[in-house]
Amino acid sequence: MSNTRIQSPASLLPEPTLRRLPWYLAYVSTLRGEGVEHVSSTRMAGELGLDSSRIAKDLSYINVKGKTRIGYEVASLETALRDFLGFSRTHTALIVGAGSLGAALMRDSGLQRYGLKIVAGIDTDPRLDGSDISGIPVYGPSRMAGLVAGMGITVGILAVPVEAAQTAADELVAAGVTAIWNFTPTRIRVPEHVVITNTSIYSNLAVMYNRMESLNR
Amino acid sequence: MSNTRIQSPASLLPEPTLRRLPWYLAYVSTLRGEGVEHVSSTRMAGELGLDSSRIAKDLSYINVKGKTRIGYEVASLETALRDFLGFSRTHTALIVGAGSLGAALMRDSGLQRYGLKIVAGIDTDPRLDGSDISGIPVYGPSRMAGLVAGMGITVGILAVPVEAAQTAADELVAAGVTAIWNFTPTRIRVPEHVVITNTSIYSNLAVMYNRMESLNR
Repeated sequence: MSNTRIQSPASLLPEPTLRRLPWYLAYVSTLRGEGVEHVSSTRMAGELGLDSSRIAKDLSYINVKGKTRIGYEVASLETALRDFLGFSRTHTALIVGAGSLGAALMRDSGLQRYGLKIVAGIDTDPRLDGSDISGIPVYGPSRMAGLVAGMGITVGILAVPVEAAQTAADELVAAGVTAIWNFTPTRIRVPEHVVITNTSIYSNLAVMYNRMESLNR
Repeated sequence: MSNTRIQSPASLLPEPTLRRLPWYLAYVSTLRGEGVEHVSSTRMAGELGLDSSRIAKDLSYINVKGKTRIGYEVASLETALRDFLGFSRTHTALIVGAGSLGAALMRDSGLQRYGLKIVAGIDTDPRLDGSDISGIPVYGPSRMAGLVAGMGITVGILAVPVEAAQTAADELVAAGVTAIWNFTPTRIRVPEHVVITNTSIYSNLAVMYNRMESLNR
């Protein structure tokens, strides 16, 4: 699923760690909302169903250390996690394909809290050209290159039908995006200098159905 | 991310294979749309950037074999993949949390093509009780157990805020769902007999940002 490439030291943390960090963030954000000031790795471990030494090790990657008997300071841990995960910076994105899934992503205000700002959409349907979805303007495909360059767009979100996916990805790469977030259930190929991240919600469904089947047998 | 449990023989295929099968399905669906009748594993390998022996092995898990010189029959391969992946059966789902992400999922007509039919939504906002989103009715939390039992709901989709996630999951389990599809960025704990599948689009964002950073260094 992921490209391998030479990593610089600061990003040497393993992907499983990177995938657990958002769990810690979600948990400490909840604690902060409840007015809790400190949390031990033991308490986190109990709540999250993980090993406390695993948590301590994961957090040491982002240079956060707990204090003996007190644990981690909730507010500073939250900030450190948000910063490290890139959620406190704004990444500007263009969505390609404003159909049901694309429009849904444009309406999801949650993305902005995680550092992703969708500034425009592209769709081949001429009826959508010049419209807007949740205040985000939608244009025809001829506008892609101009939008990416003019708005400093670094992320292209791919939400087109499968058969249009590779072509749309090629156009995004040519327009100069740094990363493509692929929501189509197909495999996209990009040059080495472009990041590809796949979020196929449908392939997760296949995994879920398969596990449901094996329970029933 | 996934629960381990004893698997029956038919579901013994490795998760990486299970995650590649939707790629093959997407590709052969496109081929069928173009009127192509046969495809070799070599051609598939070239298009998908995979090894042809890997593809042949993956497809042997679902008892599909290609013919020498002709390759796979596109239409029957598509059917076999859809059936195996559970996309041709209907799984009835209840969505909990009809906020931005939850409503977005209710509007995504794509899910139904992948075998998931969202039949109702639950939200704590009293203004939503009795409303509908894309024709799907939304009710208050007191209706959960009755809906799950009365509508034969097997899948609970979790799209609530983080701090409400575990409680909502517990309620879904008590109501009798077989599986929970967790869209919250937090870790949910469920009993052994319930399937949990995590789709944290925000944790994918963290992975993407991290790779973008390492490119820039």
